[in-house]
Amino acid sequence: MGVAHAQNEASILAMKVGMVNSGSIMMACPWVEEIAAFARENKKADLGLHLTLTNEWYDYNWGPVASKDKVSSLVNENGFLHPDCLVFSQHAKVQETEIELRAQIEKAIRMGINPTHFDAHMGCLIFSSAEMFEVYLKLGREYKVPVMVSRLFLKAASQAFIDKMTDEDIIIENAITAGPPDYEGGMDNYYTTVLNELDSGVSVLLIHLAFDNAEMQAITRGQEYWGARWRQQDFDFFTSEKCKRLLRENDIHLITWREIGEAIYK
Amino acid sequence: MGVAHAQNEASILAMKVGMVNSGSIMMACPWVEEIAAFARENKKADLGLHLTLTNEWYDYNWGPVASKDKVSSLVNENGFLHPDCLVFSQHAKVQETEIELRAQIEKAIRMGINPTHFDAHMGCLIFSSAEMFEVYLKLGREYKVPVMVSRLFLKAASQAFIDKMTDEDIIIENAITAGPPDYEGGMDNYYTTVLNELDSGVSVLLIHLAFDNAEMQAITRGQEYWGARWRQQDFDFFTSEKCKRLLRENDIHLITWREIGEAIYK
Repeated sequence: MGVAHAQNEASILAMKVGMVNSGSIMMACPWVEEIAAFARENKKADLGLHLTLTNEWYDYNWGPVASKDKVSSLVNENGFLHPDCLVFSQHAKVQETEIELRAQIEKAIRMGINPTHFDAHMGCLIFSSAEMFEVYLKLGREYKVPVMVSRLFLKAASQAFIDKMTDEDIIIENAITAGPPDYEGGMDNYYTTVLNELDSGVSVLLIHLAFDNAEMQAITRGQEYWGARWRQQDFDFFTSEKCKRLLRENDIHLITWREIGEAIYK
Repeated sequence: MGVAHAQNEASILAMKVGMVNSGSIMMACPWVEEIAAFARENKKADLGLHLTLTNEWYDYNWGPVASKDKVSSLVNENGFLHPDCLVFSQHAKVQETEIELRAQIEKAIRMGINPTHFDAHMGCLIFSSAEMFEVYLKLGREYKVPVMVSRLFLKAASQAFIDKMTDEDIIIENAITAGPPDYEGGMDNYYTTVLNELDSGVSVLLIHLAFDNAEMQAITRGQEYWGARWRQQDFDFFTSEKCKRLLRENDIHLITWREIGEAIYK
């Protein structure tokens, strides 16, 4: 949320009428005030921060929240964030990353968003280095909100990452999200299988809602996946009667990050 | 241009098929790369910089191009530019304004835009102080591009402003733009009258093209004027056969800022 009006509108609508019970906000993006207004008016909405270190689209750009000269390793010559986690990990200094993430969190709080959790846009904080991963965990402990880390990720991670975990950090079973082959095979099929075969424990299903309209088509131009059609299909599925039925049939209970956070910190 | 996809698309289309022969780019805004790509592919397009010191919409925001801590008098607590020229003029330091404007110009050049002229978003550089006005003029001389100043403005301006002008600065007759009463009276009527009653000399008609779609409606939400419908009407008029006919009937010749610049500087 926060990236585009079409995303904000679709996500809010799906939280109201669909099976979506949590959202994650990108504070560096132009449309955050629209979401902040929603947060201020809906105090119980489960809204976390999608900590943002990349700017992945060609025609539509954003820079850091912190002052550019304080986080110069995070930006390109035009002052935009790097396009992907690889470029990010090649340039970003850990200290400057922490400065930027703190600026995002403080801006959210100032705008009236009380974050329920943190996760990482494109996974850059999880995939670049154990030191970046440590910053991610540390901020969660400091702000007393759960940080998304899954058992499946830790199984594959090197010992350096695992060593950063403490008893205070929570672990979910899995963070599930569609990739290009799932999209090629049809999103309805994919999500149906996911819900029918979900393991026990707490899983997070990461989805990307928007409308297949002029704004989203223009933002995602030139990128084959995670485009406007993909996002419309996510919206369609998670506002459908079928989704509701699959949750019921599979005895899947929706819980929020706020509930998880309260279980840990209160 | 540069603010929204709907504005970029409508403006480019009107430059291709309509009577629009020049555009002005807001370098602080999220959609500039889409216009920069157009500029790189259309070297003859007349594209200047709409020097930007304000961020006037509620839900959709941008900050400065320069590093925030170098231009702290230009931004609010969330790092966004001030909402209007009054707040700008109450807070902005002249030196910091110059830093920001230089950053906008240098970013444009780096992105492949060779500005044909400078003008001032919402007129903030013209209406705040003679010192701000001087920065505006100075940058034009330095980058050897015409800066938009009209005889009608100078007639009303105090002597302090007039004293800043040198022989090098150009003066157009008038910068004409629709205001709320013109919109209330119907844009077609307004532009018809403007074109039928245009004085001799060089006049600039400042228009705001976009489409009346979901993106523009959301950006302009809560502001009565300069909204999505207004912009659609600008697009409709300046791509109409009627506009073409009125130009012909009134013997109005379209000239570009590049032609004016070449007449001064070459």
